Amino acid sequence: MTPKHCVTLLTDYGLEDGFVAACHGVIASLCPPARIIDITHLVPPGDVRRGAAIMAQTVPYLPPGVHVAVIDPGVGTRRRAIAVAADERVFVGPDNGVLSWAAAGAGLLAYELTESKLWLEPVSATFHGRDIFAPVAARIAAGHDVASVGEEIDPAGLVRLPPPSRDVRDGTAEGEVVTVDRFGNVQLSLTAADLDLIGARWGGALNVVLGRHTVRIPYDETFGSVRPGELVAYADAAGRIALAVNGGNAAQRLGLPPGAHVQVTVAGP
Amino acid sequence: MTPKHCVTLLTDYGLEDGFVAACHGVIASLCPPARIIDITHLVPPGDVRRGAAIMAQTVPYLPPGVHVAVIDPGVGTRRRAIAVAADERVFVGPDNGVLSWAAAGAGLLAYELTESKLWLEPVSATFHGRDIFAPVAARIAAGHDVASVGEEIDPAGLVRLPPPSRDVRDGTAEGEVVTVDRFGNVQLSLTAADLDLIGARWGGALNVVLGRHTVRIPYDETFGSVRPGELVAYADAAGRIALAVNGGNAAQRLGLPPGAHVQVTVAGP
Amino acid sequence: MTPKHCVTLLTDYGLEDGFVAACHGVIASLCPPARIIDITHLVPPGDVRRGAAIMAQTVPYLPPGVHVAVIDPGVGTRRRAIAVAADERVFVGPDNGVLSWAAAGAGLLAYELTESKLWLEPVSATFHGRDIFAPVAARIAAGHDVASVGEEIDPAGLVRLPPPSRDVRDGTAEGEVVTVDRFGNVQLSLTAADLDLIGARWGGALNVVLGRHTVRIPYDETFGSVRPGELVAYADAAGRIALAVNGGNAAQRLGLPPGAHVQVTVAGP
Repeated sequence: MTPKHCVTLLTDYGLEDGFVAACHGVIASLCPPARIIDITHLVPPGDVRRGAAIMAQTVPYLPPGVHVAVIDPGVGTRRRAIAVAADERVFVGPDNGVLSWAAAGAGLLAYELTESKLWLEPVSATFHGRDIFAPVAARIAAGHDVASVGEEIDPAGLVRLPPPSRDVRDGTAEGEVVTVDRFGNVQLSLTAADLDLIGARWGGALNVVLGRHTVRIPYDETFGSVRPGELVAYADAAGRIALAVNGGNAAQRLGLPPGAHVQVTVAGP
Repeated sequence: MTPKHCVTLLTDYGLEDGFVAACHGVIASLCPPARIIDITHLVPPGDVRRGAAIMAQTVPYLPPGVHVAVIDPGVGTRRRAIAVAADERVFVGPDNGVLSWAAAGAGLLAYELTESKLWLEPVSATFHGRDIFAPVAARIAAGHDVASVGEEIDPAGLVRLPPPSRDVRDGTAEGEVVTVDRFGNVQLSLTAADLDLIGARWGGALNVVLGRHTVRIPYDETFGSVRPGELVAYADAAGRIALAVNGGNAAQRLGLPPGAHVQVTVAGP
Repeated sequence: MTPKHCVTLLTDYGLEDGFVAACHGVIASLCPPARIIDITHLVPPGDVRRGAAIMAQTVPYLPPGVHVAVIDPGVGTRRRAIAVAADERVFVGPDNGVLSWAAAGAGLLAYELTESKLWLEPVSATFHGRDIFAPVAARIAAGHDVASVGEEIDPAGLVRLPPPSRDVRDGTAEGEVVTVDRFGNVQLSLTAADLDLIGARWGGALNVVLGRHTVRIPYDETFGSVRPGELVAYADAAGRIALAVNGGNAAQRLGLPPGAHVQVTVAGP
């Protein structure tokens, strides 16, 4: 297996149908040695922002390869299909921002997928994952030069999602909920460094303003640092501050969906 | 990887238990180089018809290989276990119709799985996926002649599901709902050719009779062809007509489950 | 593929996030030829007992290899991380009992994961699956001696879950619900041998005491032995007695969750 033989997939196709398997089949047919890693196929339908967040947080742990993300509410319209090359990684998907947080930084090369002889024929209007993105990714994984997929385009012109809001000043850190995971842990846009700046320390506590009420939450190393059923704020495995309930569901307890605004200050003793 | 080293699985086992992994384990043990592709394991329990539909629509995109489908409400009773060979593909599963739409056409060879020395011993009464179908599929993938799995039987005697109903005449196309996907897109038994026959054209509109009410639905290339929240009919990636809501859920909006009857005519301007 | 190149994963991470993929990525990076088999990632959050049951029932069907189980409500606290070697298998996970039913018997060797140079750096406080368990498993799969993962410890000191309760005497078998599968089949702790001891025979019937009411249930080979909609007790594919409804959901019908107590006697004719 050479590095690029790894192809990863993130979609909102769900697991009830054969859509994901069709993509696997296309990749396995065009690049038999490929290792295919499913990042997730349960992104809520059309939720480009959640897809972008999962891509950005997962890709650093994946082998070098070709990373396909198909959250594509505009499929069949005039949105572009793109490949973005960054060091040892190539990102493939629609140009709607889903790749923009994972494929960031300097030195990117971008291409529009215009070389239709690399696609499956006939191309359906609604399943570009199977007919365009999977075959292009498989061919790159099999050794095709990424530059062969279509016309080079200016990376500065790619659609970029605005990053999750973060503002730290005067002892207050304001941010938003980025994602809620299966455990109900609420990941904020704020980082441990942001909380450092407002003077928060492990073993202390935060006042977290959620709409009209304020909740005092201990700030510590992990959810296991507090008693079962208690709230805690900690730096999660992606380097962001998360709110959790030890053994429980913080998103339900606090009523915090993705995108919700939060304001954090250090709580008195 | 030789072609047949690909083994695919479709079941109603769900993903909460270790049932699918046990099948993977059996296959990996008996055919170490096998690539295993999961088509889906979320077919509603015992829904043979849905399993058959997903098989038929997905298999054309899979590499040649051994395709196992275990939707098997009759497991442990006298229904036959079969293998059906068709060109470069071998289908393995119960003889209850789940394979009948994917393994169709002329030139089929069929076998009853009677050669118990290919199975896992002891065979359980309720988990033939693990104990019979997976080991037989793995051995075929590993190079066993398909004829070695048991007695040859007459393909004409295999259980066949009636195809989804379709009737086109006098300017009216009648059909049924085949499947509803994760997005709530409603796939009909009708094809684009059927709609051609009644005079429907992209950019026009259809009258779709659903029980006692009739809905006027634009007919176009894809759901992105209409504004968010609007209904549209289009030819989907499996070549069938689908009803969708751009960014929404047509099955919920229209109250259309699989099997529901629909009647389509061309709408006036 | 040498035997140990198989790495299996069981977690409660769910499938909506990129957590499972991050583990796959770490394993594929450190042991490129590894075959990774997902046992399940849908164990209810923190349900160590259910994780242990699925491990014990699935592992016998998996190729020799490294078996990782991460149901880890105590992550980041002082619970130990361990590897347990048993013949051709190595089990890796937290020392909270999740491995104790699968890694049982004589001749075990146990190690605490203390050799931090095998881990990903920096280690997060909450995602030891990615940062400790996956890299250690991958290195063992890649050929590292299991003894290199840390200090040898006494297997007798490992946390063991009490086995599911079973008591057979005076013509009565008492037990508990071990798991409920996707089909609503209710797996009891009792075995076919237990029912033999109280004189139950296929084709007869059982009286099953559930709380304050008693249900008469035919005892036969499989759910297909009774008519659709009827209850049946049978020996399931893991060798335990299960209660099922042919074509229906016994757990819902009987109101039996995991852990519920049941008492079984032989019913009169």
